[in-house]
Amino acid sequence: MNKGQLLYEGKAKRLYATDNEEILFVEYKNSATAFNGEKKAEIEGKGTLNNRITTVIFNKLKEHGIDSHFVEQISDHEQLVKKVDIIPIEVVVRNIAAGSLAKRLGVEEGTPLKRTIVEFYYKDDALGDPFINNDHIDILGIASKEEVDKLYELGLKVNSVLQPIFEEVSVILVDFKLEFGRDSEGNVLLADEISPDTCRLWDAETKQKLDKDVFRRDLGSLTEVYEIILSRLGGQ
Amino acid sequence: MNKGQLLYEGKAKRLYATDNEEILFVEYKNSATAFNGEKKAEIEGKGTLNNRITTVIFNKLKEHGIDSHFVEQISDHEQLVKKVDIIPIEVVVRNIAAGSLAKRLGVEEGTPLKRTIVEFYYKDDALGDPFINNDHIDILGIASKEEVDKLYELGLKVNSVLQPIFEEVSVILVDFKLEFGRDSEGNVLLADEISPDTCRLWDAETKQKLDKDVFRRDLGSLTEVYEIILSRLGGQ
Repeated sequence: MNKGQLLYEGKAKRLYATDNEEILFVEYKNSATAFNGEKKAEIEGKGTLNNRITTVIFNKLKEHGIDSHFVEQISDHEQLVKKVDIIPIEVVVRNIAAGSLAKRLGVEEGTPLKRTIVEFYYKDDALGDPFINNDHIDILGIASKEEVDKLYELGLKVNSVLQPIFEEVSVILVDFKLEFGRDSEGNVLLADEISPDTCRLWDAETKQKLDKDVFRRDLGSLTEVYEIILSRLGGQ
Repeated sequence: MNKGQLLYEGKAKRLYATDNEEILFVEYKNSATAFNGEKKAEIEGKGTLNNRITTVIFNKLKEHGIDSHFVEQISDHEQLVKKVDIIPIEVVVRNIAAGSLAKRLGVEEGTPLKRTIVEFYYKDDALGDPFINNDHIDILGIASKEEVDKLYELGLKVNSVLQPIFEEVSVILVDFKLEFGRDSEGNVLLADEISPDTCRLWDAETKQKLDKDVFRRDLGSLTEVYEIILSRLGGQ
């Protein structure tokens, strides 16, 4: 599969056309960004790690009946995915209070939630990806009621598959962000990536942060902790 | 009915016990506050105006089958209400983009919304009354699913009664905030006040602001515009 024209460059990935108009070429970049792009760095090896971790996770989800846009890993920092139109809603799933939720509700970080919760954010850099509710989604016209129900349900389903997988390797899945797209037939499909860039992952024993908070909060080497996640997931 | 012990003093009202334990005495204060209490002033006549306007509005809602905690107006700045346990959720109903919604969604103030929307905020001064969703309400344990559905439905119902009442007197009901409480039998009842402190009201012709934004944004005399609202509603 040949890498064609560059179609889109995001903060963490570049998307290219391929010979097949249904398939895109994804190149994982080494850029790390946080706080809506205010903090930035280039971190050698990060793209490779996220490409590999995302590959492992999308494959595991597929084994559990959850389809995604993922087709196959092509190289250490590249993968092929199905072309989808991204729905501009970030679906955040939370098991434990951390980050903006801890602040919003005045709950100490690390407090387990009574149950897993789902939040929607409007994917719009200029607005700072604001937290929204179902009525906002409706008036923005960015997803139908049926799609919103599906995003909610898929958020919980992905959690129910990933939580035990991480638990088995002594990692707590604190929270994570998913993105979805519509394929050429209008089906809602899990998209983007699932990696320590998009999940909060804590070591079950030490509570060490094994995710992008290491970069956000200057807690040490990002690639070292991403390596731990990849290796515990049995990836290479 | 005698004014008993002071039970609670809020930013805009004082609540007193009465001889009847099911009934409270409400005294409307002249204090104006905005931005979560950061901006404050004493405005002679404001308490009287809000007491009168709230009386007119709760009476009109009652005529249309919507019960509230309101019992009767006692004096120009006092009323009797049924005792309720306030549910710590502010129910915001919006017809037109303004304030935080205009900022959140990047929509120009004054843009009519495709449909009336409802938002929930967690009534907590220390947290700055954060915007929340149904899942947050669930884990906070502050209202049952049935109550949340009722708050949403009552928000729209109050809007459907008040919008034409204001329209008839050339006032646009842009948005408003409601509070609810549980009576001694656990019924959800409209509570607090409905006044230019809790509604955005614009003159239909001139678009002049006839509400607390006059205070928030230093646009002139607050009592002058509250007088306009009271008089257009036929109150005195």
